[in-house]
Amino acid sequence: MSHFETLKGLMADVQALDSAIALLDWDQQTYMPRGGAEARANHLEALSKMRHELFTSEAVQNAIANARPESEDEQALIRVIRRDLDLATKLPTELVARKTKLSAVAHEEWVRARSANDFASFSPTLEKMFDICKEEAECLGYTDHIYDALTDQYEEGATAADWRAMFEAIKGPQVELVKAIQERGPVDDSCLYGEWDRAKQSAFTEKLVTAIGFDFNRGRQDTAPHPFCTGWSVGDIRLTTRYKPYIGSAIFGSLHEAGHGMYEQGSPAAWDLTSLAGGVSLGLHESQSRTWENIVGRSKAFWSYFLPDLQKSFPELGQLTLDEFYKLINKVEPSLIRVEADELTYNLHVMVRFEIECDVLSEKLAVKDMPEAWNAKYEQYLGIRPGTDSEGCLQDVHWSMGSIGYFPTYSMGNILSYQIWNALSRDVKDPFDKIANGDFAPILGWLQENMYSKGKKYTPKELVQRMTGESINPKYYLEGLEAKYREIYF
Amino acid sequence: MSHFETLKGLMADVQALDSAIALLDWDQQTYMPRGGAEARANHLEALSKMRHELFTSEAVQNAIANARPESEDEQALIRVIRRDLDLATKLPTELVARKTKLSAVAHEEWVRARSANDFASFSPTLEKMFDICKEEAECLGYTDHIYDALTDQYEEGATAADWRAMFEAIKGPQVELVKAIQERGPVDDSCLYGEWDRAKQSAFTEKLVTAIGFDFNRGRQDTAPHPFCTGWSVGDIRLTTRYKPYIGSAIFGSLHEAGHGMYEQGSPAAWDLTSLAGGVSLGLHESQSRTWENIVGRSKAFWSYFLPDLQKSFPELGQLTLDEFYKLINKVEPSLIRVEADELTYNLHVMVRFEIECDVLSEKLAVKDMPEAWNAKYEQYLGIRPGTDSEGCLQDVHWSMGSIGYFPTYSMGNILSYQIWNALSRDVKDPFDKIANGDFAPILGWLQENMYSKGKKYTPKELVQRMTGESINPKYYLEGLEAKYREIYF
Repeated sequence: MSHFETLKGLMADVQALDSAIALLDWDQQTYMPRGGAEARANHLEALSKMRHELFTSEAVQNAIANARPESEDEQALIRVIRRDLDLATKLPTELVARKTKLSAVAHEEWVRARSANDFASFSPTLEKMFDICKEEAECLGYTDHIYDALTDQYEEGATAADWRAMFEAIKGPQVELVKAIQERGPVDDSCLYGEWDRAKQSAFTEKLVTAIGFDFNRGRQDTAPHPFCTGWSVGDIRLTTRYKPYIGSAIFGSLHEAGHGMYEQGSPAAWDLTSLAGGVSLGLHESQSRTWENIVGRSKAFWSYFLPDLQKSFPELGQLTLDEFYKLINKVEPSLIRVEADELTYNLHVMVRFEIECDVLSEKLAVKDMPEAWNAKYEQYLGIRPGTDSEGCLQDVHWSMGSIGYFPTYSMGNILSYQIWNALSRDVKDPFDKIANGDFAPILGWLQENMYSKGKKYTPKELVQRMTGESINPKYYLEGLEAKYREIYF
Repeated sequence: MSHFETLKGLMADVQALDSAIALLDWDQQTYMPRGGAEARANHLEALSKMRHELFTSEAVQNAIANARPESEDEQALIRVIRRDLDLATKLPTELVARKTKLSAVAHEEWVRARSANDFASFSPTLEKMFDICKEEAECLGYTDHIYDALTDQYEEGATAADWRAMFEAIKGPQVELVKAIQERGPVDDSCLYGEWDRAKQSAFTEKLVTAIGFDFNRGRQDTAPHPFCTGWSVGDIRLTTRYKPYIGSAIFGSLHEAGHGMYEQGSPAAWDLTSLAGGVSLGLHESQSRTWENIVGRSKAFWSYFLPDLQKSFPELGQLTLDEFYKLINKVEPSLIRVEADELTYNLHVMVRFEIECDVLSEKLAVKDMPEAWNAKYEQYLGIRPGTDSEGCLQDVHWSMGSIGYFPTYSMGNILSYQIWNALSRDVKDPFDKIANGDFAPILGWLQENMYSKGKKYTPKELVQRMTGESINPKYYLEGLEAKYREIYF
């Protein structure tokens, strides 16, 4: 057997363990009874350890060192596995264990601190977490900024300089646009809040995501506290959504997750169950989901097609005109909580987190002074100031888990979503006319051809270049938002 | 670390893999989209191989050879692991692989043959399967009958002689009782067939199984084509049920599976996630499930309490009196299909299979002549003759999978269910009065104390002795059926 074949065999075992871990996780978030939590944690820990040991074993390292790829695809496959293996081996087991242990403690402390609005008690542990992340960064290595090592784990090739340039480009125009909209006075979307029947919401969202192209023969949709998408093969990709008083929660949550789902369902069958299958990075995964959710799903064309259906399922909404509904689902209002933010203000939330992460890592800001820095930035960018740390710097789970360098991928997704749409619009004629007719095939087809079918073959930066003809460029995002919201609000 | 501690650590990893395999299997039967089947088969195969390699590794074998148990429980734990390890190591990997491969082929051929009513085309493959099982038996070893080696895999310590004695004891009286009932003329239970609302069936069965003691904080109930029970810890035990035109399918299926579920939920917390937790054998698992399903769930007392509820959920049944309903759910009628058989005729179906398995293994019967032998036995014991092999010797999946020696555990369960009830009735005063008041706690309490809390600590035969004061004795079963059905029919 060639080293390449040996590698494939070993990776199939790694993949089987990944598949088990993914199912234990999916089940935990969807169906597992409360009493199962303790055993589930034990089993996940044991399987993750087995996975790590197998993946970083001498056998895998030998096979990859000696594998001779015979095609471009095989080359790409080796590149992807080698990158994952690098990330998995550069961190000493002792450090990984220490971080896992601290995460467990920090997560509990964070839950308590958030509910008690008590940053001071959490601050020493958070400081330790930042210190461990700095150690991680030193092990992973970087040439320019310490942030680069951390963020590369989530977005291959991305650097602090990339993110800074990205945020610098959008900061001024976004803050200004949000301010201008604020001056137009509040929008009352209270009619979108109510006690909506769950079964009807489920049926309606399944209809929507089927229409845009998610294949239920190769997937399903369930309910979970925090929507996510996960999968086991191109034949089994699962979405989750949630039902809240705001009717848009399920609708836009489902459309967003269906974007992730279609990306995963769109991997070439030949790459199924290999490391080449699936979306290439967090930022790119997010980008096309935002395209579906915001550019397609929050468009007037989309609702000119679906509003009658929605009103049939929920007669309480029957009095709304298309223009009214369109304005309501595109309501812009600076708010304190990121996960509830609208399309326009979302990136400002992320920017606050990015700037704080950089400042803490480069020791310009002490962890204990984070609340003041956070609140000042919210005032500066969003014009509002958290009354408590619970609705301020304690709101997100990420830092307690040591996921530092993760947040900017959300903004990258938002920005690229418009860049993708711009590229798509050069090839697909009048896409909004097609949407208004319920014809999503040309849009899905373009994404399939230019993005989904590429799996992880190219690096994220290469893929952006191939797909859109240039590297990430905030211009389309700024122009898109400007055009959309000026039309709605002015 | 002591060898005993090492063993526990290794077994925790084996257990994590078992847990993953169980979840992949549960998911496949409940929620997995069609497209996931191929990848799921790959992942299950890889994980099962890992599980086998880990469990039979030198590390486990060394640890168990040198482990020094320090208590009765530790002794029992080692005994159970050693037995499993014996079964896992006595069969050469080559033989296991050959059987797995033949099973896959045989299963497909069986599906085709059953649907085409074509035993002849399946016969050569089935002959190969019996041959492989004979090889297995030689590897496993036996002193008396070749059947002993095979059946011991499913029911520790059971032998062909045990089963023969069991069937000999019941054959005459059962055949006679069924004949006598037949002569009373047919019972029309067509009013129990209809298009019953699934959500209402689900709610009603959940109410029933909650009432008898299944704990939904530590479990759930889902839908699957063939009802089963599975679990991950005492905190997470899951039932499945199914919804059919016959309203009893869901009701008695749920009660039966809840029996299995309560047995698993009742293991001592201290043994959770070890090989001592859970039911001790197939036959004993089945026995107490039959107690709940047939003796409790098909009693007049049970429905004197629950019939009003049932009629509230399904007003179509509103005209039935308690006596009428009781007779309908205890309808006896010889039929061709085992899985649809009533309580009274069920064991006659199993007897046919046991006798044929013995005859084929001891080469008194050629596989190709199986249909004639089958049909003659149905005529002799049940008074009816299959018109086709599809409703004859092709009806069950077991033989295509090489599960030879499995069937008698069903009958053992039926017979013990009455023996258990007899023992329970010595301690629990007037159990049917309690049932009629919806008070199931004394019954569950007795089973918990005398059976569930023992886990796998004793061998099945020891447990029967401890629980009932004697070894398996068909007397209680025969007397119980006689009393019940004479009361209904004469």
